[in-house]
Amino acid sequence: MIAEIIAAGSEMLTPYRQDTNSLYLTAQLNTLGVEVAFKTIVGDNRAHLTQAARIAIDRADIVLFSGGLGPTEDDLTREAVADALGRTLRRDNELIASLHKRFAARRMTMPPNNLRQTEIIDGATILENANGSAPGQYIDTTVPGPDGTPHRKIVILLPGPPKELKPLFDDLCMPLLARMLPPRHLTRRVLRMALIPESQVDARTSPIYKTYPDVETTILAGNAEIQLHFACAKPTLEEAQARVDELTGKIEQEMGDAVFSAHGESLEEIVLLHLGMRHLSLAVAESCTGGLFAERLTSVPNSSSTFSGGAVVYTEELKTTFAGVPPELFKTHGAVSPEVARALAEGIRANAHTSLGIGITGLAGPAGGTPGPDELKPVGLVYIALADGVDTQVKEFYIPGDRDRVRLWATQNALELIRQSLL
Amino acid sequence: MIAEIIAAGSEMLTPYRQDTNSLYLTAQLNTLGVEVAFKTIVGDNRAHLTQAARIAIDRADIVLFSGGLGPTEDDLTREAVADALGRTLRRDNELIASLHKRFAARRMTMPPNNLRQTEIIDGATILENANGSAPGQYIDTTVPGPDGTPHRKIVILLPGPPKELKPLFDDLCMPLLARMLPPRHLTRRVLRMALIPESQVDARTSPIYKTYPDVETTILAGNAEIQLHFACAKPTLEEAQARVDELTGKIEQEMGDAVFSAHGESLEEIVLLHLGMRHLSLAVAESCTGGLFAERLTSVPNSSSTFSGGAVVYTEELKTTFAGVPPELFKTHGAVSPEVARALAEGIRANAHTSLGIGITGLAGPAGGTPGPDELKPVGLVYIALADGVDTQVKEFYIPGDRDRVRLWATQNALELIRQSLL
Repeated sequence: MIAEIIAAGSEMLTPYRQDTNSLYLTAQLNTLGVEVAFKTIVGDNRAHLTQAARIAIDRADIVLFSGGLGPTEDDLTREAVADALGRTLRRDNELIASLHKRFAARRMTMPPNNLRQTEIIDGATILENANGSAPGQYIDTTVPGPDGTPHRKIVILLPGPPKELKPLFDDLCMPLLARMLPPRHLTRRVLRMALIPESQVDARTSPIYKTYPDVETTILAGNAEIQLHFACAKPTLEEAQARVDELTGKIEQEMGDAVFSAHGESLEEIVLLHLGMRHLSLAVAESCTGGLFAERLTSVPNSSSTFSGGAVVYTEELKTTFAGVPPELFKTHGAVSPEVARALAEGIRANAHTSLGIGITGLAGPAGGTPGPDELKPVGLVYIALADGVDTQVKEFYIPGDRDRVRLWATQNALELIRQSLL
Repeated sequence: MIAEIIAAGSEMLTPYRQDTNSLYLTAQLNTLGVEVAFKTIVGDNRAHLTQAARIAIDRADIVLFSGGLGPTEDDLTREAVADALGRTLRRDNELIASLHKRFAARRMTMPPNNLRQTEIIDGATILENANGSAPGQYIDTTVPGPDGTPHRKIVILLPGPPKELKPLFDDLCMPLLARMLPPRHLTRRVLRMALIPESQVDARTSPIYKTYPDVETTILAGNAEIQLHFACAKPTLEEAQARVDELTGKIEQEMGDAVFSAHGESLEEIVLLHLGMRHLSLAVAESCTGGLFAERLTSVPNSSSTFSGGAVVYTEELKTTFAGVPPELFKTHGAVSPEVARALAEGIRANAHTSLGIGITGLAGPAGGTPGPDELKPVGLVYIALADGVDTQVKEFYIPGDRDRVRLWATQNALELIRQSLL
């Protein structure tokens, strides 16, 4: 059972816009055991759309269209699919009435163009759109295959805006599709790791996950972390969960503390969780990361109960004002030094009255160190310190890459330093 | 002259990965006057790839493949395109020699699989890949159309990794394509606006840009801003630039100060530029935005010359410690109040010894105000103050949406407040 997703809209053939609905639809279809074999992106051109529809109906069992159901002359999915199936379009009276109502409720007269949205392909089931004026359409039909035998085909027309497409697909299409497919329960789970090369994760985990051919394992690397995605479908949910739990248990054992999250939580969430469980508070004095460390933690709702805030100390003066760094350290060691990182962590901890203090200083680039002791230090050099009132750890990192990468990896290292120290 | 882009790779048919090469290729093809009419995404399946290649060669003049040129059994683009064109593959001796050299230079023996990367479609021009082991291939051919007359077709095979694809396409394919197309010079320009609804921008600018049918105008909304993209192609660059400059001049006049950038710069860059020109320095005390304001400014290289940093003051205590907010303000007005915003701006300016100070306080959600004076204030309420030592402006905003949206729009409003006050 394979599917094709066709995204209709000329804007997705420009350098500016991408089809993203297909990612969501793919995830949903996968839960039913349906693989997406083709994705096609077509402009608002009736001949092109009709041709794409014909090809898709020929080669896939389930064809999903997103977009092209609006009221304008450019919205051509209805016509194209009708042409491809050799069917006619008819205006639906109930839809006309409900559309008039919709406009009347907003004290507007319906523009005549909107009548296009009431056109239904002969034989299609209308899928009510709770969040917009374009209904979806669901066609369950058979077409003759190359050998003349009939093949069952499902053709679904969905509105383009994600806020309309997602609930409509979930509420109305998923049950219809599930009914025609063998019963199946899918479990997914995500393990996340930071600061470890993808090749190492793969070398250590593939001998394990390859012995679970019924669990689909995907390794994704990016944003300074590695994610292992697991998916398993079985006739019952218990069986699927048992297989995934068994596999992830073995992988957690192999990877040990490198796994920061066993159920998909972000590193920020995990660090806040660990701090909260121990009733610890945290403040940061960050230089080269310029607020990114604080921004990441505060992006988590309710972070304020453990993360107090801190200071973005781009200049030497502010390092002294907010974190009490002795000015002589800049002259003797430079602002990018283990000594200043330590002073930042200890100073911000003292000033903010928190249990822990983090200090981050480094050269994010593109320019290198300023004249003085930092002059010859390379872009990518970062010092991170963690002070807990008893002891202060200071670590040196060299992070290759551009400004954004240095900043992201510096915050990742800082979060990992906290997490590891709390284990 | 229309193009189709085919992205090969099963990972792009999962919920996790998207084809992004096509955005780049589209931008480059557009500069030559070539429109992309179809994009197809296919998995690592020889029959599917061959079928997609046949369809594309039939319906487009230029067909670009990205991916599927690696050394593994899953890399099938070479075979599929050869099948679709009815041609054979041959191993190229020079490529074999240079691949052996490449591995020898790294003191590695070449795995036999890599020989697959030396397979060239009969009649193809080899496109040397300076950044990887998979060369590209360029085929200039004619195929009979439906009426039997010959049609010229260009078929290009490109490696999948963007770091290999982009330079290879720019350096080797663009000149070959340009040679076969009429000479043409394209000018692009971007105007950017913030805090103004897309519908208003369109209503005010469409009567202007519609009188320039030779300039392609695209309105993009997102990330709390509106971008107007202009592109115009003429036989000479001067003509193209003159048309775009004339149109953008009229639009700038209509939209006035709402246009923050006339050549594509970001709002952060523009604010830093204005501050720099006036030799002004800036510090921030931010609560609900949690470091995002500082992070945005410091993402710009060399921002440290004007932006000193500041404080992330999530707790009342830190608002007092770092920005000197009198504690009684929290009791009488609440932390989310014009009074506290003012105190934050004035306090951080004084403590950081900067020309300007910004204070941001608000409720980003999802939870509402804490017990006390903030208790009944709605999520999305934000106060922003700008202090310059003489005067302090305080503004109230109500920003609907989720936590991320409230935070982004709050920083956008803060940046606009600075920009407007410097005009």
